[in-house]
Amino acid sequence: MSEQNRQVMIDSLPEDQLQESNYRLETTDVPSPGGGQVLCRTLVLTVGAGTRAGLQGSASYAGAPKVNIVMNGSGVARVEHSNSDQFKPGDLVICPSGWQDYSVHDPAALSPVTDDIDPAHYLGALGTNGLTAYFGLFNVGNMKEGDTVLVSAAAGSVGHLVGQMAKIKGGRAVGITSTSEKCSLLTSQLGYDAAVSYKSPDCRADLKEACPNGVDIYFDNTGGDILEMALRRMNDHSRIVCCGVVSQYDTSNPAGGPRGIPGLLVNKRIRMEGFLVFDFAASYGKARDQMKSWIIDGQLNPLNDEFDGLEKAPAAFVDMLAGGNVGTRMIRVAD
Amino acid sequence: MSEQNRQVMIDSLPEDQLQESNYRLETTDVPSPGGGQVLCRTLVLTVGAGTRAGLQGSASYAGAPKVNIVMNGSGVARVEHSNSDQFKPGDLVICPSGWQDYSVHDPAALSPVTDDIDPAHYLGALGTNGLTAYFGLFNVGNMKEGDTVLVSAAAGSVGHLVGQMAKIKGGRAVGITSTSEKCSLLTSQLGYDAAVSYKSPDCRADLKEACPNGVDIYFDNTGGDILEMALRRMNDHSRIVCCGVVSQYDTSNPAGGPRGIPGLLVNKRIRMEGFLVFDFAASYGKARDQMKSWIIDGQLNPLNDEFDGLEKAPAAFVDMLAGGNVGTRMIRVAD
Repeated sequence: MSEQNRQVMIDSLPEDQLQESNYRLETTDVPSPGGGQVLCRTLVLTVGAGTRAGLQGSASYAGAPKVNIVMNGSGVARVEHSNSDQFKPGDLVICPSGWQDYSVHDPAALSPVTDDIDPAHYLGALGTNGLTAYFGLFNVGNMKEGDTVLVSAAAGSVGHLVGQMAKIKGGRAVGITSTSEKCSLLTSQLGYDAAVSYKSPDCRADLKEACPNGVDIYFDNTGGDILEMALRRMNDHSRIVCCGVVSQYDTSNPAGGPRGIPGLLVNKRIRMEGFLVFDFAASYGKARDQMKSWIIDGQLNPLNDEFDGLEKAPAAFVDMLAGGNVGTRMIRVAD
Repeated sequence: MSEQNRQVMIDSLPEDQLQESNYRLETTDVPSPGGGQVLCRTLVLTVGAGTRAGLQGSASYAGAPKVNIVMNGSGVARVEHSNSDQFKPGDLVICPSGWQDYSVHDPAALSPVTDDIDPAHYLGALGTNGLTAYFGLFNVGNMKEGDTVLVSAAAGSVGHLVGQMAKIKGGRAVGITSTSEKCSLLTSQLGYDAAVSYKSPDCRADLKEACPNGVDIYFDNTGGDILEMALRRMNDHSRIVCCGVVSQYDTSNPAGGPRGIPGLLVNKRIRMEGFLVFDFAASYGKARDQMKSWIIDGQLNPLNDEFDGLEKAPAAFVDMLAGGNVGTRMIRVAD
């Protein structure tokens, strides 16, 4: 047990693109759990694009931004000391650890992790990312066998799972991503039928070719110009699942909306619907069971993309916002 | 029976705003019905904003635009001569007459009109406008008792019916329109609880005050800046019914999309859905019966806004696109 607690603090709110210098590392004493509480040692952290929205001046679902607090985030942790009879030292749990070595929680904040699968999956496919992919595709998008499912940020933490789930259910999966290297990854390792780089000068033609029967579901993780391009490919009575707006998070001055809205929605009778995964909390258990069985039988292959060391968390986050990640970006804090 | 057939022809496609000079009046012989066909005398025509979309360079649901054809439109007509045993001279029908005195149709194109209500209602509340209001509000918007229903172009052919239907079903109706005169009309004659002029410099504050509990359904007839303003007032899990885009029809260069899409859709879990009334054709009969009973018992008061004379049709259309109409714009062609 380390004798000190390293903490990544929010030093300043980003004015435009997030910088590593928006954070500072501090060292304090390891906290002591109070009556009934549990002391947790962070093992692995995850960072997600949605977290960036919480640093914008306007409040989002992530709450209003503040400085001089420990950066928020979820982690897999090991119980180090327990004043609760619900947990004992050595138990593995998921908790809202924040970006720090040690954190203290009431038992209600901890989710025990079963040992039949790598616990890091509980931060990825079995965590918010996987649940977001699952409920977005099946409940909001109402995906049916044979649907063409187009996904933006397709190599990202949510997107790389959406395409695989679309394939499991008998759809055609087409991904939009940043580079030709990521396009190759999508089609060679992640089950996508086709992939398009939005940075290609021919991306509109590429997308048309990749979707010969149009698009039935567009799972939108980006908004912006990519949404505008996808709109042109939507079929009559198709669905746009609005999951995230990563193109707009990393700025203090979000751009205008996509042209063609609402005109194309009318002409093509498109349903465009935003969702937050938290609204589906009552069904998490069933979805997790389904995804876990897909992982265990090899149908679903979650990618974890790790940085090593708590002090690397800001760099890992900045790099992820710039599109550097493939799969779920994680930070390994301790063994 | 007039011995000639006056026809309003599309002379040129509008380059920006529609002008009366985009049309020309021609006079030809009265057409002769073929075997099994019916000759109809147009009595009343209606013009709708959706028709404008059909004159834009890009094809819409109204089809690709053409010149040197009779302007399309629906009318109430009287059968003058019939070679079909389904109709006899003197019968009143609704038909795709176009903007002309006489037209010839197969019987399948004619809908007989019952005589228990002013037949002009079949071009308004019992025609496409009323059906659009009905299915948009109840089927797409899924309106519930107690909902706040916000309507743009609220004094228009569809909008003036949406507000009244929202009231019939126990909602709060708030209208957005162009002038303070129209605002007064909405609240004094058309049952709206509150009305806001989008031309007021305080329109955002006015809208906030008019919707103290936020907006559950926004029935959007305009798109553009008004949609962007309405987006800020939407409640969690609210619905935007995308019915029309009148702000963008009367131009060859539609503007950018509303800011806040898709970000606000995600944060507020908004469903935004476009529709075309034709998709509900199988349920027209039931909806017409309901609306007819509302008209007969005085709960629904359709407004018809008439111009006199076929030659006035272009002026009536141009004026309507500029927001000159209240209720359903109609052109009285003959008695």
